[in-house]
Amino acid sequence: MPLVYLTRVERFNAAHKLWVDDWSEEKNFEEFGKCANKNWHGHNYTLLVTVKGSPDPITGFVIDAKYLSKLIREHITDKLDHCNLNLDVDFIPKGTQATTENLCIIIWQQLQTKLQNCRLHCIKLIETENIYAEYYGE
Amino acid sequence: MPLVYLTRVERFNAAHKLWVDDWSEEKNFEEFGKCANKNWHGHNYTLLVTVKGSPDPITGFVIDAKYLSKLIREHITDKLDHCNLNLDVDFIPKGTQATTENLCIIIWQQLQTKLQNCRLHCIKLIETENIYAEYYGE
Amino acid sequence: MPLVYLTRVERFNAAHKLWVDDWSEEKNFEEFGKCANKNWHGHNYTLLVTVKGSPDPITGFVIDAKYLSKLIREHITDKLDHCNLNLDVDFIPKGTQATTENLCIIIWQQLQTKLQNCRLHCIKLIETENIYAEYYGE
Amino acid sequence: MPLVYLTRVERFNAAHKLWVDDWSEEKNFEEFGKCANKNWHGHNYTLLVTVKGSPDPITGFVIDAKYLSKLIREHITDKLDHCNLNLDVDFIPKGTQATTENLCIIIWQQLQTKLQNCRLHCIKLIETENIYAEYYGE
Amino acid sequence: MPLVYLTRVERFNAAHKLWVDDWSEEKNFEEFGKCANKNWHGHNYTLLVTVKGSPDPITGFVIDAKYLSKLIREHITDKLDHCNLNLDVDFIPKGTQATTENLCIIIWQQLQTKLQNCRLHCIKLIETENIYAEYYGE
Amino acid sequence: MPLVYLTRVERFNAAHKLWVDDWSEEKNFEEFGKCANKNWHGHNYTLLVTVKGSPDPITGFVIDAKYLSKLIREHITDKLDHCNLNLDVDFIPKGTQATTENLCIIIWQQLQTKLQNCRLHCIKLIETENIYAEYYGE
Repeated sequence: MPLVYLTRVERFNAAHKLWVDDWSEEKNFEEFGKCANKNWHGHNYTLLVTVKGSPDPITGFVIDAKYLSKLIREHITDKLDHCNLNLDVDFIPKGTQATTENLCIIIWQQLQTKLQNCRLHCIKLIETENIYAEYYGE
Repeated sequence: MPLVYLTRVERFNAAHKLWVDDWSEEKNFEEFGKCANKNWHGHNYTLLVTVKGSPDPITGFVIDAKYLSKLIREHITDKLDHCNLNLDVDFIPKGTQATTENLCIIIWQQLQTKLQNCRLHCIKLIETENIYAEYYGE
Repeated sequence: MPLVYLTRVERFNAAHKLWVDDWSEEKNFEEFGKCANKNWHGHNYTLLVTVKGSPDPITGFVIDAKYLSKLIREHITDKLDHCNLNLDVDFIPKGTQATTENLCIIIWQQLQTKLQNCRLHCIKLIETENIYAEYYGE
Repeated sequence: MPLVYLTRVERFNAAHKLWVDDWSEEKNFEEFGKCANKNWHGHNYTLLVTVKGSPDPITGFVIDAKYLSKLIREHITDKLDHCNLNLDVDFIPKGTQATTENLCIIIWQQLQTKLQNCRLHCIKLIETENIYAEYYGE
Repeated sequence: MPLVYLTRVERFNAAHKLWVDDWSEEKNFEEFGKCANKNWHGHNYTLLVTVKGSPDPITGFVIDAKYLSKLIREHITDKLDHCNLNLDVDFIPKGTQATTENLCIIIWQQLQTKLQNCRLHCIKLIETENIYAEYYGE
Repeated sequence: MPLVYLTRVERFNAAHKLWVDDWSEEKNFEEFGKCANKNWHGHNYTLLVTVKGSPDPITGFVIDAKYLSKLIREHITDKLDHCNLNLDVDFIPKGTQATTENLCIIIWQQLQTKLQNCRLHCIKLIETENIYAEYYGE
């Protein structure tokens, strides 16, 4: 049975800052630069969710992309869109930096138990036109 | 003398919310939806500044694009990048909604007096892949 | 009152062909090339609707972009998406070629009476990465 | 000898529908939604073909990208462009759903025997800005 | 008769430098920075040619986009692609700086006499993701 | 410890040609086509550098993207930007074809010893909208 990877793209717009409570303001700016601005900044995030499996012999689907979209919106992007990633999201642990890297891991953990008949392969999150992260569950 | 339009693209990432103080929370959410989230959200903004003029007969420049970039960064994007558009920017009047439309007008007003030998033609601001505004000083 | 242009982007995927019933098959292929394939072909269309007006002094909106999106979806893209432009769309007159140019005019005619408090400025339709058309109601 | 991956991008525009003959119309719409529209819809497809091998010590090429382009056009995109994927393509078996997933496998099978001095690594097919599939011959 | 604008996109890759022979090396670097590198640099240029006219009542075309493409390739991009804009192009006058601005004017002059049944409206040339110029024949 | 991949994008514009000194002019054009133009041509190159590692428990960074950007600029793109890849770059061996494939290997070799606390995973270089290469150090 051939193994095919299917990717669905979703988007969300959110505010965040990078800040370690145990550090002084000086230390925070030294480490995080403008990302430590106390009044927040934000991004248009693009999320790519890749699943793998064999296409169904009848439908030709690894997964119905509309169903995958619904899953991602319900469990992830509806909860992140137009939110503050440091304050508003119940599945981002307080004190966890909302870096692109950590968000990939957290999104993976939320989604992986929701998929049936196919396996989660990769969470890719694009923060700006110059920065993105990928997590493969390793 | 031929008239040519030259556009320079710059980018900034910022937080904002849409909120009218005189309105109730209900009215704000009714009008602005998720954009009224009290803990802010944010965007990767793309700013396109178009100037017009005749290319210099020697250099072939309407304006040196590197100089135009320096002007835009100094007067606009360095002051908006990684900021909160409602709280951190001295040239955005308090109480002015930080909509894409209003930001275009405000950026025009900041830049127009800084240009020499050519005229400002358009401020275009892209907020998401689905929304942008343009202002021509009219 | 400053005049600002706001653009909302929507998308639809559709099939069509270019074919003149009064012409022979040879003449159709001579004029339209592969676009005359009798079994149809299709595109991912990107539609940009630009309206103009003055931002509301309170909300900062020329038009609520979410409302504009709803209008475009209800009157245009919900009726074009996953359709055959030659067969399935009641507001495309039979015998009118579904070229990018004609689609712009037809979409303008559908939308212009639906807008309040602001005026339709431009319909731009991108058919491929290499071809787009624009109509300004002139 | 270092192993390098080279990717060539080609494009085609095609019509298709998702439809299982053994199912009722209701069942088809339930499963495939608007993709089951009997009069077809279509897409601008973007095809990325990745090959792997060691750069030739003299030319620096894993494969001449112009030659790879010629191969892809001759064997794949010239046969898919401006076609109906359900009706017009001899190497797509009747009854096989023309999903992005299945198209990747079918394109792999067509191309893999045509390559010399380098190996096919991946077929990636982008159907819309939100959906793509990848097949690695596994 | 409605007036519609049709745009065709073509691409070329070329080398150039910005350099005034009458100036010293110091003056050239002061004015042009790294663009004055004597061994050249280069760009992937994207050219957008916009024509205007009324769609033909039968074909729905302002101009056949394939024919427009053929015109642009024959008269412009085949002569610029994989060339040195300062040395290799007969219609770029020696001593004229190959700036984005000047290239727009020169391309306009080459193309305007070649069009029939429609008028040239705009030449837009994108030099990098951050810089483009437009010329409307004014 | 989860393994995350972080990618930073940088850009440079450069001239090059493909040419083997030991070959005749005819042989060079036969093999390389227009890429052998003796007066050079050029590209806007996009460079994607991917590193892998575990996010720091405090900062959430695999690597500070701003520091990674600084490394890439200092060691790679400042030395390639607005240069001639055949003539101006000390770390490209004379006689090595400046193909996308070879540039990936050479950039890998320059960067791999500069990274600390994380490992270089991939160098991806996009030469045009249709061609890119990737090297994983294998």
